[in-house]
Amino acid sequence: MDALPDDRGPREKRQEDQRRRILDAAIRAFAHGGFHATGMQAVCAEAGMSPGALYRYFPSKEAIIEAIVERDRADIPAQLAPLLEAENVVDALIESAHQFLVGNLKPESLPLFPELFAEAIRNPAVRRIMTGCDEEVGEIIVRVVERGMAKGQIDPSLDAREAVRFLMAATDGVLMRLLMEPGAELEGLMPMYERSVRRFLAPVAAEAGR
Amino acid sequence: MDALPDDRGPREKRQEDQRRRILDAAIRAFAHGGFHATGMQAVCAEAGMSPGALYRYFPSKEAIIEAIVERDRADIPAQLAPLLEAENVVDALIESAHQFLVGNLKPESLPLFPELFAEAIRNPAVRRIMTGCDEEVGEIIVRVVERGMAKGQIDPSLDAREAVRFLMAATDGVLMRLLMEPGAELEGLMPMYERSVRRFLAPVAAEAGR
Repeated sequence: MDALPDDRGPREKRQEDQRRRILDAAIRAFAHGGFHATGMQAVCAEAGMSPGALYRYFPSKEAIIEAIVERDRADIPAQLAPLLEAENVVDALIESAHQFLVGNLKPESLPLFPELFAEAIRNPAVRRIMTGCDEEVGEIIVRVVERGMAKGQIDPSLDAREAVRFLMAATDGVLMRLLMEPGAELEGLMPMYERSVRRFLAPVAAEAGR
Repeated sequence: MDALPDDRGPREKRQEDQRRRILDAAIRAFAHGGFHATGMQAVCAEAGMSPGALYRYFPSKEAIIEAIVERDRADIPAQLAPLLEAENVVDALIESAHQFLVGNLKPESLPLFPELFAEAIRNPAVRRIMTGCDEEVGEIIVRVVERGMAKGQIDPSLDAREAVRFLMAATDGVLMRLLMEPGAELEGLMPMYERSVRRFLAPVAAEAGR
């Protein structure tokens, strides 16, 4: 039943490009008007496509939202993989949170951040994708923290799972703050974030430093 | 032009009660369906009022949302006032964050939390109310932190404003996490939150402890 690989490649590539183009357009449209107030017409206009062409890829606005969440979250576990081999676990955790924050601060991503949380509460499909990714990220970071404990870099008396929950909470919270407070900037908050993470994770005996 | 005080009291009280009844009903309706998907009809049904009666109090859904945000935020500065007289500033900060979290975890409040952030991005009136309250809270906590510095309970080398931003971020982040992760509970996270705040604020020389 499969087409020959040589045949299938370009067609799939074209379809993949079209999907990406639609999702990018939808993100711009949603960032401007929000999920609920933005209709499929606005997405079509932003993508420069007819409804007929667009509906061939996505049957509904919900399908687009799900695909955005899926794509947004798909890369995260791979991005975290190097954490599992880092020499200095705490440095690596801070660096990876910094990258996550910078990525989410792009003007087209930032307004979608609370919108996705709000959507996850009411839309079970979006919720499933987000909590699935969240669990995967949590599992990886628990392993990273346990590795840091074994290396003596992180206090081994911590409850690793609750500690990871708190680290994820603090990172998400920084994004919310940057969203809410006009005067706040990531570079002003990063030294605080770093101090907080270092002191939070430090073994009791160690002097946490700056 | 003023009515006699004896006359006006009960009428104003009745109007106040009706407003409160509408806002409570709207919060239940919005928590269930979200701001955008929930129409005025659903709010009327939940409040058990006719559209004619309801529109006498609120001319639009936007007016209801603004009133919800205003009422939600109005009490916060008063709740924080005792922080300015606390004997142990760090204990008091943790206790007040705990109260804030418990209050926001009520089933009718929690789903509105990301919804309000999402709304603030696109609705300038909501944004103004939220950032106004946010600034007020920030100003109070900056003064609390500076008081802690003067008392030797908080590291005086911290940038007080950025430290407060981070504390607010971590607190909001905990709410987001409880919203996103089905297995997470406040009582599991509070020891982490407390450890984080104590170690974050501790003067360099002091041993931060647990």
